[in-house]
This record gives sequence, C-alpha cells and structure tokens, in this order.
Amino acid sequence: MSTISIKIRLPHQHLVAIGPGKADLLEAIGRSGSISAGAREMGMSYKRAWDLVDAMNKSFRQPLVSTATGGSHGGGAKVTEFGQEVLERYRQLEQIASQSIASEAQALSALLQPV
Amino acid sequence: MSTISIKIRLPHQHLVAIGPGKADLLEAIGRSGSISAGAREMGMSYKRAWDLVDAMNKSFRQPLVSTATGGSHGGGAKVTEFGQEVLERYRQLEQIASQSIASEAQALSALLQPV
Repeated sequence: MSTISIKIRLPHQHLVAIGPGKADLLEAIGRSGSISAGAREMGMSYKRAWDLVDAMNKSFRQPLVSTATGGSHGGGAKVTEFGQEVLERYRQLEQIASQSIASEAQALSALLQPV
Repeated sequence: MSTISIKIRLPHQHLVAIGPGKADLLEAIGRSGSISAGAREMGMSYKRAWDLVDAMNKSFRQPLVSTATGGSHGGGAKVTEFGQEVLERYRQLEQIASQSIASEAQALSALLQPV
C-alpha cells in the first residue's frame, strides 16, 4: 500500500515557523520535559534542537517552548499553552489536507505499477 | 505575507513515484521537448533528471516520458498522454489540499509575529 505523504510548512521571514520536524520536536520536548532529551529522541544534536526551538519562538507572537533557568543544558523545558495551541492547529492542518485528498489520492495510486 | 507550503509525495516501493521536483521536471520536459533541456531548466544534471524520469516510468503502469531513439542525449523526449494525466492529477491534489486548509492556515498565520 502506498500512503501519500503531505508536508506542510509555514514560512515566516527567512525561517520556517513550523513544519514536520519542528512539530515532532515540540511533541518530543513535551513528552520528555527537556530540549536535550527531546533532541536525543529525535536523533538530533542539542544545538540543532535549540536552533529549531529558537526559530519557532522567534517566529510566533509568544514562545512555544519555555526553559527553566539553570544553565544551558541544565534546566528543563516545557511546551507552553500557546505552543500546544500552535501544535494542535498544525496537526489539524495536516489532517484536513490529508482527508481532503484521500479519494483523489487513491485514484492516482491506482495508476501505480502493481506490486 | 506568509504563504503556507504543501508538499505531496506519492511513494511506491522504495521510490517516490511523483513529488514536487518530479512534477516540475515533467513540465520542463514537456515545454522543452528533451530531458537534457528540461534538466538545464531545472538546474540539475542530465543524469539526475534521467534518474527521476526512470523512477517515474518504473513506478507507474505506463511510461510518463517517452524518448526518441537516437543516442543517449540525442533524441528528444515527450510527456506521454498518460504522463499528462498523472501530472494533472498531481497538480489537482496540490490544489485541493491547499484550498482545504486555506482558512485554518490563515488562523495559524495570525499567530505569527507581525513583520
């Protein structure tokens, strides 16, 4: 079975405010309670995760992730209420888009080589 | 203004049967009448373009691009009727998905930092 993939990205200035990787990272931070544990879960460096969080926080009106004081890697991090809202809206976009094309995607898939 | 980007990919076996780059390449080949001119227009190597065409042709039931005989780079190429159908269906998917999320995307964009 071929499952069509839809990737949605919301650009802002020269950054991507939110996209597939950032949304997954937000969820990983929410689950693990820190940027470093979220990064590990995603298989990315702490620096890379921090850069993505920084891009999100700078792109939106309010921070999506708040960090506790206590050193660069020390304190925990959590997804703010605002961050939860952005994440839910983003996941909703993915779902709406996916449902909207379901039947047309099936028609296109029918033109694929049988496996 | 932030315009949300939607990228749709249809996987088949270990390949992507069609996605944004392949669709653009199909159009470039259609316009230019050859794989090498299409590749040039897309800023990619002939080999890369040929690999993408090969992946498309192998993934679908019928070829999307047919090449005239006359040497590897020599003959022209054209998008088959079947290729046109796949391309139109793919562009339609993009349009449906984009329209389906328009109002929700605007609501998400409203949460971005004003510029």
